[in-house]
Amino acid sequence: MDSFDKICKDIKEVKIQGARNVAIAAAKSLLIKSDKKAVKRLIGLRPTEPTLRNTIKFVLSQPDLRKGVKKAVDHFQQSQKKISKYGSRFIKNGMIVFTHCHSSSVINILLEAKRQGKKFEVYCTETRPLYQGRITATQLAKAKIPVTLFVDSAARIALKKADIAFYGCDAITPTKIYNKIGSELFALIMKKYDVPLYIATDSWKFDPETIYGIEEEIEKRHIKEVWPKPPKGVKISNMAFEKIDPNLATAIISEIGVFMKKSFIAEVRRYYPFIFKV
Amino acid sequence: MDSFDKICKDIKEVKIQGARNVAIAAAKSLLIKSDKKAVKRLIGLRPTEPTLRNTIKFVLSQPDLRKGVKKAVDHFQQSQKKISKYGSRFIKNGMIVFTHCHSSSVINILLEAKRQGKKFEVYCTETRPLYQGRITATQLAKAKIPVTLFVDSAARIALKKADIAFYGCDAITPTKIYNKIGSELFALIMKKYDVPLYIATDSWKFDPETIYGIEEEIEKRHIKEVWPKPPKGVKISNMAFEKIDPNLATAIISEIGVFMKKSFIAEVRRYYPFIFKV
Amino acid sequence: MDSFDKICKDIKEVKIQGARNVAIAAAKSLLIKSDKKAVKRLIGLRPTEPTLRNTIKFVLSQPDLRKGVKKAVDHFQQSQKKISKYGSRFIKNGMIVFTHCHSSSVINILLEAKRQGKKFEVYCTETRPLYQGRITATQLAKAKIPVTLFVDSAARIALKKADIAFYGCDAITPTKIYNKIGSELFALIMKKYDVPLYIATDSWKFDPETIYGIEEEIEKRHIKEVWPKPPKGVKISNMAFEKIDPNLATAIISEIGVFMKKSFIAEVRRYYPFIFKV
Amino acid sequence: MDSFDKICKDIKEVKIQGARNVAIAAAKSLLIKSDKKAVKRLIGLRPTEPTLRNTIKFVLSQPDLRKGVKKAVDHFQQSQKKISKYGSRFIKNGMIVFTHCHSSSVINILLEAKRQGKKFEVYCTETRPLYQGRITATQLAKAKIPVTLFVDSAARIALKKADIAFYGCDAITPTKIYNKIGSELFALIMKKYDVPLYIATDSWKFDPETIYGIEEEIEKRHIKEVWPKPPKGVKISNMAFEKIDPNLATAIISEIGVFMKKSFIAEVRRYYPFIFKV
Amino acid sequence: MDSFDKICKDIKEVKIQGARNVAIAAAKSLLIKSDKKAVKRLIGLRPTEPTLRNTIKFVLSQPDLRKGVKKAVDHFQQSQKKISKYGSRFIKNGMIVFTHCHSSSVINILLEAKRQGKKFEVYCTETRPLYQGRITATQLAKAKIPVTLFVDSAARIALKKADIAFYGCDAITPTKIYNKIGSELFALIMKKYDVPLYIATDSWKFDPETIYGIEEEIEKRHIKEVWPKPPKGVKISNMAFEKIDPNLATAIISEIGVFMKKSFIAEVRRYYPFIFKV
Amino acid sequence: MDSFDKICKDIKEVKIQGARNVAIAAAKSLLIKSDKKAVKRLIGLRPTEPTLRNTIKFVLSQPDLRKGVKKAVDHFQQSQKKISKYGSRFIKNGMIVFTHCHSSSVINILLEAKRQGKKFEVYCTETRPLYQGRITATQLAKAKIPVTLFVDSAARIALKKADIAFYGCDAITPTKIYNKIGSELFALIMKKYDVPLYIATDSWKFDPETIYGIEEEIEKRHIKEVWPKPPKGVKISNMAFEKIDPNLATAIISEIGVFMKKSFIAEVRRYYPFIFKV
Repeated sequence: MDSFDKICKDIKEVKIQGARNVAIAAAKSLLIKSDKKAVKRLIGLRPTEPTLRNTIKFVLSQPDLRKGVKKAVDHFQQSQKKISKYGSRFIKNGMIVFTHCHSSSVINILLEAKRQGKKFEVYCTETRPLYQGRITATQLAKAKIPVTLFVDSAARIALKKADIAFYGCDAITPTKIYNKIGSELFALIMKKYDVPLYIATDSWKFDPETIYGIEEEIEKRHIKEVWPKPPKGVKISNMAFEKIDPNLATAIISEIGVFMKKSFIAEVRRYYPFIFKV
Repeated sequence: MDSFDKICKDIKEVKIQGARNVAIAAAKSLLIKSDKKAVKRLIGLRPTEPTLRNTIKFVLSQPDLRKGVKKAVDHFQQSQKKISKYGSRFIKNGMIVFTHCHSSSVINILLEAKRQGKKFEVYCTETRPLYQGRITATQLAKAKIPVTLFVDSAARIALKKADIAFYGCDAITPTKIYNKIGSELFALIMKKYDVPLYIATDSWKFDPETIYGIEEEIEKRHIKEVWPKPPKGVKISNMAFEKIDPNLATAIISEIGVFMKKSFIAEVRRYYPFIFKV
Repeated sequence: MDSFDKICKDIKEVKIQGARNVAIAAAKSLLIKSDKKAVKRLIGLRPTEPTLRNTIKFVLSQPDLRKGVKKAVDHFQQSQKKISKYGSRFIKNGMIVFTHCHSSSVINILLEAKRQGKKFEVYCTETRPLYQGRITATQLAKAKIPVTLFVDSAARIALKKADIAFYGCDAITPTKIYNKIGSELFALIMKKYDVPLYIATDSWKFDPETIYGIEEEIEKRHIKEVWPKPPKGVKISNMAFEKIDPNLATAIISEIGVFMKKSFIAEVRRYYPFIFKV
Repeated sequence: MDSFDKICKDIKEVKIQGARNVAIAAAKSLLIKSDKKAVKRLIGLRPTEPTLRNTIKFVLSQPDLRKGVKKAVDHFQQSQKKISKYGSRFIKNGMIVFTHCHSSSVINILLEAKRQGKKFEVYCTETRPLYQGRITATQLAKAKIPVTLFVDSAARIALKKADIAFYGCDAITPTKIYNKIGSELFALIMKKYDVPLYIATDSWKFDPETIYGIEEEIEKRHIKEVWPKPPKGVKISNMAFEKIDPNLATAIISEIGVFMKKSFIAEVRRYYPFIFKV
Repeated sequence: MDSFDKICKDIKEVKIQGARNVAIAAAKSLLIKSDKKAVKRLIGLRPTEPTLRNTIKFVLSQPDLRKGVKKAVDHFQQSQKKISKYGSRFIKNGMIVFTHCHSSSVINILLEAKRQGKKFEVYCTETRPLYQGRITATQLAKAKIPVTLFVDSAARIALKKADIAFYGCDAITPTKIYNKIGSELFALIMKKYDVPLYIATDSWKFDPETIYGIEEEIEKRHIKEVWPKPPKGVKISNMAFEKIDPNLATAIISEIGVFMKKSFIAEVRRYYPFIFKV
Repeated sequence: MDSFDKICKDIKEVKIQGARNVAIAAAKSLLIKSDKKAVKRLIGLRPTEPTLRNTIKFVLSQPDLRKGVKKAVDHFQQSQKKISKYGSRFIKNGMIVFTHCHSSSVINILLEAKRQGKKFEVYCTETRPLYQGRITATQLAKAKIPVTLFVDSAARIALKKADIAFYGCDAITPTKIYNKIGSELFALIMKKYDVPLYIATDSWKFDPETIYGIEEEIEKRHIKEVWPKPPKGVKISNMAFEKIDPNLATAIISEIGVFMKKSFIAEVRRYYPFIFKV
C-alpha cells in the first residue's frame, strides 16, 4: 500500500484524477492517517471538489473506519450502475443525443443504451480549450456508436436536430449546477428548442456548504491552454466552468433516482443525512 | 500587368483573398478579357461571393470599361472610409465591444474609434476552427486597444459584460445575413441581454439572386481544419457559416448609411439599381 | 357482488371508466381475490394508470384488507371535496376561466365556486378528436355557469382574455405532468400571457416508478377517431396525451394542499409513504 | 357569356370561390358593366377580399378594358407559376414541411418541388371546424407526397419535427398578415423552435386601405360549423381568421420575389403603383 | 410681430414649448432673418429636436419663404387631423387603452375616438419625475373619458388588462424610436402580453442625420426634478428618454399612414424628399 | 410594562411598525393576556402579516410562555445575523447591486458586506408612491456605500448594468412571493438580463394557510398617497404589493440557509414544524 504522503502527492499532481477516483484514494488513505491535520491536508488537495469532502465526511462518520471505506467504494460502484440504468431509459431508437465535454457518467449511460441494442446517434462538441469532446467521440466510436463532432460555436446547429441532451457535472449547490464552460450557453438553446437536458451525476457532488451562501469558486486555468504563445497585449480568459440555471435542466439523474433540481436536495438529505451534518 | 489566366489562378488558389480584393482583381482582369466566357469563368472562381458578381455586373454596366473599373475601385475605398466613420460613432468611452471572427470592416471601425481618442475594450472569440479571432486580437493589440480573447463557448460570459457588438458579413439576402459559424448562436444571447449588434459591410455583399428564392450555399470545409487525425468512425461537421435572423441585428452599417436590415434592400436599390438588373 | 372476472371484464371494456372509478372497483375486487396473479391481472388492465397501481398498493399495505378498501374509497371522496374547496378559492368574481378537455376535478372546482355565489365565465376548447370539451360545456351550462366553446386552434385568442386556467391530469412523475394533447401548447401561451395554470388532481396520480427513469407511455389511439375514412396514402397521428413542462404550471391543487410541482413529491411522500415503497 | 347578374349571384352564393377565381370572374364581368354602381356592387360581394378590389382597380386603370381584363388574368397565371418556382427552392431533400389549412399557393409549391424530384414529407393540421386540412392531405396523397394529418392541438408536436412551414394568406396590410384561425398560435411555436415560416401569396392580397388605419374585419362564421346542435346556454366562438405578427414570418413568397414582410409594401408599390392610387 | 431675438428667447426659456409650436415659431422667425447665422442660432436652441431642424430645412427649400412658412404651418395642422383620424380607427368599444407620459397626438386620437361615440377606458402612468401622466389624466377626465392613473411601477398590472397602447415620440431614427424614460421597459411587457403598441407622431420627427451613425443624445435633466433635497452622498440618475427597439412597436401612425417602423423611412422619403437632402 | 390594550393600540396606529417589531411586541403582550379572545384580537391587528401569526403560534406552542417569548425574540435576532452573513457572501468587489423599496434585511446584508471591506455600488429605485427608496439611499449613503437613485420607470436601465439584485419580502406562500408593487415587473427584466435575484427574509414570513388555496390579500392603500388632489373623474390605483413568480427568483436567503423557492417549504417544515400545525 502506498504511504499517505504518496497518495497526497499523486492526487496533487493529477496522477490520480476524476472526482470519484480522487475520493476513493483519499478515503483509503484515511486508513493510514485520519487525524484532524491529515483530513485538512486531504481536503486542501482539491478545495473545489465536493465529492472528496463528502466521502471523507462519510468515512469518518462510520463506527468502523475500514468498513466505512469499503462502503464508500461500494457507493461509487453501485452509483455508476444505477445512473447508467436510469439514464439509459431516456434513450429511444432513432434519437440524436447531444453532449458537451467528457463525462464518464454520460459515457456509461450511452454504452448501457447501446448494450441494450438501442440505435441512436451522438452529436458532441469538441470542447475547447482541452478538446475533451475528442475523448468522448473516440470512446463512442470505439463502441460503434455513430458520433459527429462539432466545433463549440456550431452547438446551436447540432441542437436544432437533437432529441435529448446529457451533461455530467462538477458540483451541485442548492441553487446551481456547475459544469464545463459553455454549459449554460448551450442549455439556453436547449430550452428554446425544447431539448430535454439531463444531468448525470453521483449525488455526492452536492456541496452542503453552499447552503449558507458560500459560492463555488470557478477555476481559472492557465492561458496557455487557450493560446500557447499569444502576442504581447492580448489578455486571455480561461474559466473552466460556468453555472447552469437549474430551470434549464429537466432533471438530475443520480443513484437515488431522477429528480428535478428543486426536489434534489430534499432527496439527498433523505438518503445521506451525513452530508448535511455541520 | 498579370495575364487573365494568372489572375484567375491567383484567385482560385487564394493568393488573392478577401471579398474586396478578389472583386477588384477580377474587375481589373476585365480590361484584358471581358467576353461572356471570361465573365463566366471569373464568377465560377468564387460562386458564393455576391461582391464579386456585383462588381463584374457594375463594370460591365458602365459605358467605358476602364472608367468602370476605376469607379469600382473607388467604390471600395470610399466605402471602407464611410463604414469606419459611421460605425465609430457608436463606440463611446468605457464601452466593452464584442466581436466574433475577423472582419476588416470591424477592425477599421475600431481603429477609427481609437484614432478619435476613444477609450474602450474589446472582447473577441478565438473562432474555431481557423482561429481568426487571434488575427483580430493581434491587430487590436498592435494598435494598443485593450483586447481579451475567449474560447467560443465562453461567449455568453463575454456578452454578459459587453455594451455593443460588431460582426462583418459574408452575404446579405432579402431575408438573411450570413456570417461565420456561431454568429446566430451569439446573436440570440445578444438579443436576450440587449447588446445591440451592428453588421459592418459593403452594401455590394447583397445578393440579388436570392430575391427569387435561390438560397446561399453554406460552405462545408475540410474536416482536417477541425481535427487533423480523427479516429476511425468519428464524423466531423465543419460548416463555415450560418444565417443570422435579421430581427437579431440592430442595424447594417454600410457605405450608404445605417439601416435596419428590413430597410436595407430598398436603400441598396436606390443607390445601386444596377445590382437588381436581371 | 360481481365476480372478480366480471370486474376485470368491465374495466377492460371501459364499462367502468375514470381513473377513480377504476381504482375503486379494482380495490373492491381485491376482497374476492388478492393473490399475486390477481394483482398482476388488475394492474395489466390499465398499465398506464398510476392511480390504479397506487390504490392496489395501498390496500395491500393495510393490515386488514376490508378496512383498507374502505379507507381507499374514503380517500377518493375526501380528496374530491378538498380539491373543490382549495381550488374554488382561486376563482374571483369577474374572472374568465380557461379549461381544456374534460376533468371532473376541474368541473367540481367550478361547481363549488358557483355554489359559493361567485360570478365568472368559462372558456373551453372543444378538444378534438373526441370533443370532451362539449361534455365540459354541457355540464357547466346545466349549472348556469356562462361558458363559451372554442375550436382548439383558437386557444390563444381565448387565453388572451382569460384570468386563470385549470387542467386535470392523467399522471404525474418527478419531472413531468401528463395531460390531454394540446396541454403543453396552450400552457406555453399561458406562460407568455401570465395566465396562472392550476393542475387539479388527486395526489395518487403520482407514478413512483418514474423516479427510476421509466417514462410514461403516451397512448396512441385509433386513427378513426380523427378521420373515419381517410383516403389512401394519408397517415394520421393520434397521440392522446402530451407532457407539460412543470415550469409552466403555477401549482398542483390536490387533497394535500396547493404546491408547486417541485415541492409536490416531497409532500406526497410525507402523506403517503406507501406509494414510495418498492 | 353569363350576364352581370348571374356572375354576381354565383360569387355571392359561393359557386365561384377562391380569391383568384372571384377576382377573375369579377374582372370579366366589367366587360358587361363597368359603371360606378356595378363596381360598387361587385366589391360589395366580398367586402373582405383585397384581391377583388385590387383586380377591379387594375382593370379600370387600364386604357383598354378588354386588354385590362386579359392582363389581369395573365397576372394570376404568371403569379402562380412564379410563386411555385420561388417557393419550391426552399424545399430540400429529407425535409418535413408543416402547413395549416388549405392554400392552393402552398399546394402548388409542394407539387412543383415533387415534380423536381425532391423527397420530402408533409405534416398538416386537420383545421377545424371545416377540415380544410383533409383537402390538403388528400391532394398531397394523390400526388404521392407522404403526408401525416394531426389534430390542431398537436401542432406543437408536429412542429418539433418540422424543418420549414408554409401558409397561404387571406390579406396583407402594412402591419399584419391575416390567415386561418390558429395561424399565430402555431407561428409563435415556429419562432420558438426556429422553423422558418413562409407566406405564399399573390401580392394583390395587399390591402391599401389599411394604410390609413382601417383594419381587416375578422369574419365570424356560423356556430353550427363548430357544433351542429349545442345545448342551451353554451356560446360558441367561430372566428375564421386571425392576424399574424409579421415578425413571426421569415418571408412572403409572391410573384415579385421573396421579401420580408417589412420590405414587402415598398416592393408592391414599385411593381403595382395602381394599388396605391386613392 | 415679435422680433427674431424675442422668439429665440421665448424658445430658449421654454415659453414656447412642444415640438410643433417650437417648429412653427422658428419657421415664422425665418421671415425676419434667414441668413446662415440665424439658422444656426435657431437650431442651436433645441439641438435634440428633429422637428425644428426639418421644418427650417423645409421652409428654406421652398422657392418663396412666405409660402414655405404657410405650407409648414399647414403641414402640422393637417398632420394632427390625419393622425387623429387614422389612430382612432384602432380603438374599439370596450377597449382598455394604455398610455405613458403625455402626448398631444395620443390625446387627440383618444378625443377623436370619444367624439365618434366609442366607449373605452384609459390606463395611464403618472410618469415620474414630472408627472406628465397627471396632465393626460386631467385632459381625459375633462373629456369624460374614464381614466385610471397608476404609479409607474404598476405598469405591468395595468398592461395585463390593456387591449392596446399608444405612445407619442420625441425622435425617430432609422433604427430606433425615442420616447420618455420607461417606454422600452413597458414595451417589453406589451410584447410579452401581445398588447399592440402604436407610436403616434408627425413624420417630421424623423432625424435624417442618424442615417450616418450620429445617435440621438439622451437628455440628462436636473436631479432636483427627482429629489429636491437629497442627502449628501446620494447620486441621482435623471435621464429623460430612452430608446425603444422598433421590433416592440406594432406601427407608427403618422400623417402619411400607418406603417411598421421598418417601412417608415422609405415612406417618409417618398413624401418628403427634402428631409434627406444633405 | 405597557398594558395589553396599549400594545394593541400602538400596533394598530403603526406606532410599532415593521413585521418583526410588531411580532415581538405581540409576543410580549401574550405574557399579559393569552386567552383565545386576546389572540384573536392580536392577529386581527395585522390580518395580512404571516410573521405575526407564526410568532403567536410559536409562543403558544411552547410549554413555558415566558421562555417561549424569549425564544421568539432570540429567533429574530439570530435570524437577522444569519441573513446578513449568508447574503453578504454573494456580494463581490466591483459589483453593482440593485434593490427596490426598503428592506432592513437587505440593508443589513449591504452593511455587513461593507463592514467586510467589500467595494460595491448600489442602484435603487425611488419606489413611488411612498419613496421608501429614499430611505434606502439615505441609509446607504450614511454608511459610505456609493448609491444612485433612479425613478421607478428607469429600472430597466439600472438593471442593464447591475450584477445582482436583492429584495425583501412581505409574505411567502407555497407558490408565490409577495413584495412591493413593481417587484415582478423588475424581476422579469432581471430574468431577461440574467441578474440573479435574491429574496432576503426571515422564514417566518411563510404563510401556512396558503397551502389550502387561501390567497394573500393585496392591500389597496389610500389614493392620496399617489395624488393628493386629483381632479374629478380620475380614478387612481394604489395596490401596495404584487406577487413574484418564484421562477424569477434565484434563491431565498433566510436564517435556515439559501434555498430555491421550491425547496423552501420543505426546509421551513424541517426547522419549524409548529408553523404547519393546523
